[in-house]
Amino acid sequence: MDRYLVISSDGHAGPRPEVYRDYLDPQFREEFDIQHKARMAMLEAAGERLEMRAESQKWAEGKDSGLSGAWDSERRNEIIDADGVAGEVLFVDGLTEQNSPPFGGDLALMPMGANPELQWAGCRSHNRWMSEFVGLEPARRFGLALVTPFWGVDVAVAEVEWAKANGLGGILMPHMWMDQDPYHHPKYEPLWAACEDLGIIIHFHSGAAATQDYFGAALFGAAPDGSPPVEMPGALGIYVTEVAWWLSRPLVFMIWAGIFERYPKLKVAVTEGTSIWVPELLELMDHRFGEHHFSAKLGTGYRKHLKMKPSEYFRRNVRIGSSCMPRREAELRHEIGIGNMMWGTDYPHPEGTWPITRKMMVETFHGIPEAEIEAMIGGNAAEFYGFDLAKLNPLAERIGPECAWFRDETA
Amino acid sequence: MDRYLVISSDGHAGPRPEVYRDYLDPQFREEFDIQHKARMAMLEAAGERLEMRAESQKWAEGKDSGLSGAWDSERRNEIIDADGVAGEVLFVDGLTEQNSPPFGGDLALMPMGANPELQWAGCRSHNRWMSEFVGLEPARRFGLALVTPFWGVDVAVAEVEWAKANGLGGILMPHMWMDQDPYHHPKYEPLWAACEDLGIIIHFHSGAAATQDYFGAALFGAAPDGSPPVEMPGALGIYVTEVAWWLSRPLVFMIWAGIFERYPKLKVAVTEGTSIWVPELLELMDHRFGEHHFSAKLGTGYRKHLKMKPSEYFRRNVRIGSSCMPRREAELRHEIGIGNMMWGTDYPHPEGTWPITRKMMVETFHGIPEAEIEAMIGGNAAEFYGFDLAKLNPLAERIGPECAWFRDETA
Repeated sequence: MDRYLVISSDGHAGPRPEVYRDYLDPQFREEFDIQHKARMAMLEAAGERLEMRAESQKWAEGKDSGLSGAWDSERRNEIIDADGVAGEVLFVDGLTEQNSPPFGGDLALMPMGANPELQWAGCRSHNRWMSEFVGLEPARRFGLALVTPFWGVDVAVAEVEWAKANGLGGILMPHMWMDQDPYHHPKYEPLWAACEDLGIIIHFHSGAAATQDYFGAALFGAAPDGSPPVEMPGALGIYVTEVAWWLSRPLVFMIWAGIFERYPKLKVAVTEGTSIWVPELLELMDHRFGEHHFSAKLGTGYRKHLKMKPSEYFRRNVRIGSSCMPRREAELRHEIGIGNMMWGTDYPHPEGTWPITRKMMVETFHGIPEAEIEAMIGGNAAEFYGFDLAKLNPLAERIGPECAWFRDETA
Repeated sequence: MDRYLVISSDGHAGPRPEVYRDYLDPQFREEFDIQHKARMAMLEAAGERLEMRAESQKWAEGKDSGLSGAWDSERRNEIIDADGVAGEVLFVDGLTEQNSPPFGGDLALMPMGANPELQWAGCRSHNRWMSEFVGLEPARRFGLALVTPFWGVDVAVAEVEWAKANGLGGILMPHMWMDQDPYHHPKYEPLWAACEDLGIIIHFHSGAAATQDYFGAALFGAAPDGSPPVEMPGALGIYVTEVAWWLSRPLVFMIWAGIFERYPKLKVAVTEGTSIWVPELLELMDHRFGEHHFSAKLGTGYRKHLKMKPSEYFRRNVRIGSSCMPRREAELRHEIGIGNMMWGTDYPHPEGTWPITRKMMVETFHGIPEAEIEAMIGGNAAEFYGFDLAKLNPLAERIGPECAWFRDETA
C-alpha cells in the first residue's frame, strides 16, 4: 500500500444538547427541561466574559458545516475522508462545552456535586445515542459508553454488559475520583474482571483537573459553595500544567494495585494528555519498585504482589491516545514506546488538527521510518481496538495520506 | 581551602515527645496527656504489624547514642563533625514517627482532621524548643518554625514575626492544603509579603501525599471515618511514586499565581523530594506559557501577569533541598540547575546518609569540577540561608571532607 491506514484514537461525537432529551428515560425529562434552560443561560452569560470561550467561538466561525460532523453521520464521513482518516475512536463531547449530555454525564464524569441517579440517566442518554451513531458505520467507528463506577460497582458492570451488547467496544471512566474511593480499592475488582472478560477497553480522557472548581469559579462567577467568586490568579496556567498528571494518575493506581497482574488481558487507553510524561513516569515507578539504599525502610511487602516491573505492565496493557501528537513526541518515540502511541485528530475540537490534518500529520511524522509511522498513525490502534482491516484497508487505499508525502526530500 | 564547606539543607531535630509537654501553653497539657497516651499505644500496636516500622527499628538498633543528636546539642555537634557537616537547616521530626510534636503540629501539618487551636499549640511547642536549640549553636543551625496558614492568615503572619524575633530564619508550611484554599488564593498575600519583608525563607518538606489516608488506614488499622480498615493493595507504591509531585505542587501554584512577580525577593526551598523532576516541570510550565497552535484556545489573559517565564522565577526564587542526592542527580546538574541544588544528609532519618555520609558524598560527587561540588555541597546553601562564613570556614577547614577525596584517580 502506498498510502497509510490512519485511525484516529481521539474523536468526539454527540448531538446538540436538546436532542439528549429524547434519549433520556421519560421520568428524567422534566428535570432535563429545568436544568437545560439554566445551563444554556449560564453558557450564554459566560460567553461574554470568558476569553477561552471567545477564542473557541472565533475558531468555529464559518465552520458550521464541518462541525456538524459531531452528530451528522454522512457529514462526518466526508470530513474524515478529507482528513485521510479511515477509522475513529469516539468519545463524548462533540463540540467543546456546547453539547455535553445532561446531569454531569459528560467527559469529566465528576462525582462531586453529582446526583447518582441523574448522572447515570445522562450517561445512558449518551450511550444510546452513541450506539446508534456507531451502528450507522460500524467498521469505521469504535464508540465508547460513559460508565461511572462510584454509585455501585454492580450498576457499572451492568452498563459494561449493555455497552458490549449494543455495539460499543469500550468505556470512558472518570480519571478523578475526588472524594470517592480511588482505583486501588478492592471493591472495583468486579468491574476490572467484567472489562477483561468482555474485551471492553477502559479509557481515560484529558479534561478534568483539581483546579477545576476554582477555574470554574473564576470563569463562571459562582464558587462551588455559592459564595461570591474569587479571582484566582494563575488558575488556567496551573490547570494546563497539571492536567496530564491527573489524567495519568489512574495508571499509577492500577499498576501498583496489581490490577494488570490479576487481569492480564485488561486494556486501558489514556487519551489526549500528551505522551511526554511517559518515560519519566515509567522510570520513576521502576525505580521505586527496585531495591536500593533509600527504599530499604519500605521493606518489600508493598511490591511482592507484582511479578513484573511497573513499566512492563504499561507496555503490555496500556496505550496512549496521542492526539495531535507534536513533532517532539514523535522524536521521543523510542523512549515513549513506539508500540504504545496512537495518533489522533481530536476532531471536531478547536485544539485538534482538523481542518489541516494532512499538513499536521506530515509535520509530525516526516522523515521517520515507514514501519514506525504505520504503527503510530494507525497500526497500533487497529490492533488494540480490533478494527476490521479487510474493510478499512480498501478505504485507506483511496483516502489515506500518501507515504511519499512523509519522505524527506533530502533522505 | 583544601576541604569543602558542607551545609546540610535537610536536618531534623526535636525532643522526645513527652518533652513537648513542657513547651506547651499550660492550658493544653491536660489534652496532651490524653492524646499522648493514645498515640503511644497506637504506635506500639502498629509496631508489631508494620513492616516499614520494623525496618526503621532494625536500622536504629545500636544507634541510640547517635540518634540522640536529634535533641542533644553537644552530641549533635559531634555527629555532624564526624560527618564533615559544618552547618544545617533544621526541620521538625527528629526521629521518624517517634518524636513529632503533638496535635498534628508535625512535618505534614495536615489540615484534615486538625483542631486549629490545638494544632497551633503543637506548632508553638516545637517552635519554642527549636528556638532554644538553635540558640545553643546559632552559627551552625538554621532553624525552621512550623506555620500553618489555614486558620487565619493574620495568625500565621504573627508566628512568622515571632520566628524572626526568636532566631528562626525560616518556616515550614504544609505542602498539601487538602480541602483548604490553595496557594494561588489572594487571601495569602499578607503571608508572602511578611516573609519577603522579614527575609523568612518558606520551606516545603516531603512526607505527605494524597494516599495518606488509605496508607494510614492500611497501616494503623483504622479508616478515617472509623469504618473497618480495608487493605489497599499498592498503597505504598503509589505513595512513593506521587510523593515528590505533591511536594512540588506549591511551586506550580505560586509561580503561576505570580507570587514571585509581586514578591521578587521571596525565597522558597523544596526539600527531600529529589530534584529529578525539575527539568521536566520547568519545561512543561515554559511550554504552557508559550504560544503555539494547541494553546490558542486559552487566549493570553492567563499569563499576562507574569513578566518572566515560569523557569526564570524558579531559577531566581527557589532552591531544592537535595537530600542524599544520588549520583544520577549530580550527573543531571546542568539540566536541574547547579545553582538551585543544595545537598543534605537528612540526619538522623534512616533513609539519610548518616552514619556513612562521607562515603556517600564521594559516591555522588566524585569527578565533578570542584567549583560545582563546592556550590552544591555547601556554597549555594551558605548564600541562600546567609550562613556566616567567617564562623563556618574555620570549622570546615578542620572537619570538612577533603577535596582530594572527590578527584577521580584517572582524572
